[in-house]
Amino acid sequence: MQKIQDAIRNIPDFPKAGIQFKDISPLLKNPLLLNKAVELLVDPFRSKKISAVAGMEARGFIFGSLAAAKLDAGFIPLRKPGKLPYKVNSSSYELEYGSASLEIHSDALSSGDRVLIVDDLIATGGTALASCELVSGLQAEVVACAFLIELDGLGGREKLRDYPVHSIIHY
Amino acid sequence: MQKIQDAIRNIPDFPKAGIQFKDISPLLKNPLLLNKAVELLVDPFRSKKISAVAGMEARGFIFGSLAAAKLDAGFIPLRKPGKLPYKVNSSSYELEYGSASLEIHSDALSSGDRVLIVDDLIATGGTALASCELVSGLQAEVVACAFLIELDGLGGREKLRDYPVHSIIHY
Repeated sequence: MQKIQDAIRNIPDFPKAGIQFKDISPLLKNPLLLNKAVELLVDPFRSKKISAVAGMEARGFIFGSLAAAKLDAGFIPLRKPGKLPYKVNSSSYELEYGSASLEIHSDALSSGDRVLIVDDLIATGGTALASCELVSGLQAEVVACAFLIELDGLGGREKLRDYPVHSIIHY
Repeated sequence: MQKIQDAIRNIPDFPKAGIQFKDISPLLKNPLLLNKAVELLVDPFRSKKISAVAGMEARGFIFGSLAAAKLDAGFIPLRKPGKLPYKVNSSSYELEYGSASLEIHSDALSSGDRVLIVDDLIATGGTALASCELVSGLQAEVVACAFLIELDGLGGREKLRDYPVHSIIHY
């Protein structure tokens, strides 16, 4: 765990003054540590009959697809507006200024699917909650949300109170 | 191979009239076929001592990270401008209208690194060539470029003439 944390680099004032950005690049470049991180991410869910992992564009595609492979589950991309080519459902969420939205293919999931939602980081939880709503909106079950990094004190876990939340590293 | 091809859905007129978009969503959702596709993607390179796989935002993150895991290699994200938090090198390429660019962390690779470049699709090859230039610019070696899908007749393979190109499915 300490080694994984040592492979996450703090970049002060990115993308703007006052933000301490958690740069996962050194972790991604280390295959042994990256594999270990993905193991820790999925371990609580190995017996949970996960049928699909949903990951948010863009960094969630990395941990989401690796988690899906470990769980022998499918991977469902959640994308920014206009990127998915087929019929989509959309969910909006608030940002500090304005709002954003995520999309899922309308035929991506159905009742009976048991879904793990994965991203590299949870802060205020807006993106994660929108992801849960997209999955639930297709009648699939959100089994849990799993994050490599959780920024404590920003309300993310509270926002996801209806779902189990699993995070490996806390700041 | 046929089964993989059957899991790629053609979406006519996306993102604009006349384009036949290759939708990989059904393949991503099928864990057995997705695993098989990644096996085929990396098989020629198993003995090539690949130290890192570089993948382009955003769909290249999926196949790139899965390929890296199969090869026990690190994963290097190539990102759109302004997304990487540390010092970056940039490479521009032409689009049908205007241009775009990709970035890599300046400390992502170094001489001695042997790199496989991975994306889901090659069309005109502009993004792939920019990726090769980013990797070469850090004194690392581009061992090859590997794609799930190659759109023949658009000049991509010719544009990458200095590098071995491996594609699984041709249209």
